[in-house]
Amino acid sequence: MYTYQTSVKLHDTDAAGVLFFANYFRLTHEAYESFMASIGFEFYHIIHEADYVVLIVHAECDFKRPLYVGNHVTVEIGAGSVGKTSFTLNYSVTNADGNVVASGNSVHACVDKQGFNARELPDGLRAALEGIA
Amino acid sequence: MYTYQTSVKLHDTDAAGVLFFANYFRLTHEAYESFMASIGFEFYHIIHEADYVVLIVHAECDFKRPLYVGNHVTVEIGAGSVGKTSFTLNYSVTNADGNVVASGNSVHACVDKQGFNARELPDGLRAALEGIA
Amino acid sequence: MYTYQTSVKLHDTDAAGVLFFANYFRLTHEAYESFMASIGFEFYHIIHEADYVVLIVHAECDFKRPLYVGNHVTVEIGAGSVGKTSFTLNYSVTNADGNVVASGNSVHACVDKQGFNARELPDGLRAALEGIA
Amino acid sequence: MYTYQTSVKLHDTDAAGVLFFANYFRLTHEAYESFMASIGFEFYHIIHEADYVVLIVHAECDFKRPLYVGNHVTVEIGAGSVGKTSFTLNYSVTNADGNVVASGNSVHACVDKQGFNARELPDGLRAALEGIA
Repeated sequence: MYTYQTSVKLHDTDAAGVLFFANYFRLTHEAYESFMASIGFEFYHIIHEADYVVLIVHAECDFKRPLYVGNHVTVEIGAGSVGKTSFTLNYSVTNADGNVVASGNSVHACVDKQGFNARELPDGLRAALEGIA
Repeated sequence: MYTYQTSVKLHDTDAAGVLFFANYFRLTHEAYESFMASIGFEFYHIIHEADYVVLIVHAECDFKRPLYVGNHVTVEIGAGSVGKTSFTLNYSVTNADGNVVASGNSVHACVDKQGFNARELPDGLRAALEGIA
Repeated sequence: MYTYQTSVKLHDTDAAGVLFFANYFRLTHEAYESFMASIGFEFYHIIHEADYVVLIVHAECDFKRPLYVGNHVTVEIGAGSVGKTSFTLNYSVTNADGNVVASGNSVHACVDKQGFNARELPDGLRAALEGIA
Repeated sequence: MYTYQTSVKLHDTDAAGVLFFANYFRLTHEAYESFMASIGFEFYHIIHEADYVVLIVHAECDFKRPLYVGNHVTVEIGAGSVGKTSFTLNYSVTNADGNVVASGNSVHACVDKQGFNARELPDGLRAALEGIA
């Protein structure tokens, strides 16, 4: 399990006074970027240097409690199934009281930048994902 | 079915050159706001005047093709199940070539602003949702 | 003068109940993208095909009145000084009552994608800018 | 001077491969929120509890160098003029190499939530601002 901590910024909220639902996905993606950097797969490298890219092909989230500006948030990431060319990540988002505010998952597929054909996950990435399964 | 048309703005995209995945949810929510206004339930009213609010308790999306800055996009919304206090919306997002780029759904629950207890959908809203089922 | 019309979406607002100040810049940029497309300089072309790019080197805005979710907005763009390699755009944002809610400007510089050296504005762009001066 | 550190997230960037210009304002506002919390003026309090609010009436920024996904960023905030009912903040944004990537300022006005009339800054806020002048 990988743990990422942040807080809710004003630009994450909306006029209903709470975190805008689509920004939970932004938040869990920040946690994913942080996880990837921690295992040597910086997004800068993937986007600007590598010959592959990892696409998000599915994402879902259950929203259980509101989050307000300034709230401290913990995102825990664990790997679900890790396949040859794709993998699933599970997220649990908790507030400062330890209550789960949202949980969800995303499915990622590795493809060539040229042609967008499926390709095997880089070895180090597969190993790191299995480490948080 | 309700149809909403827009185009991809630069701020919707990311450094991978395509619409950032979380912004598909932003896009379908724009379509939902437009639908709600078209049936007399302006978000301004719900957020600033009404004694109820409609929460999103679940959202999911399958991402099938990329969208690029300037691409014209059509979002079609249909109602799935319409319950006493909640409802489901289904989305299909197509590009200018008529190809589906994403499809998903969201589950909405009506609650009192005070206390966040479940309450019945306003009558006009239920009827309008049944009209796009 | 080029005119762009849109409305405030929920994701543009924040927990203070109004358009988040940074999103005025997003809004005027949408108007700029629309203007550019209208004169044959689609952002898709500039970003994915052209050998130049137009950088924003300065932006400023005075915020005069709040905007709320659902509010209809008109952005008027006029060109300020148009130089050899750069230009200024002036923006006026009005609400449905015709009141100015914000006004500002942005300064744009044309550079080579390789090396980011200053280069002359494409001819058609200069002419079109002079047309809204 | 107050110092805030963060990094560029994928959702901050656009298809040109760099931080979207309007998101520099989002970034400096994050730093401002962090500063305010550090001196006892949590945004949660201001937005959900206080009888005043602090509006941004002007913002501007010079953009000098690009920022890419994953880049570490330091925002330094200093107070410019601190008046009876308003104040100015100056921002300097530097990258990991210590180069200034952007600099700007914002002007803030304190008003009553009811009626939006100008009112004096809370005492503690004025003192804290003078501490970073």
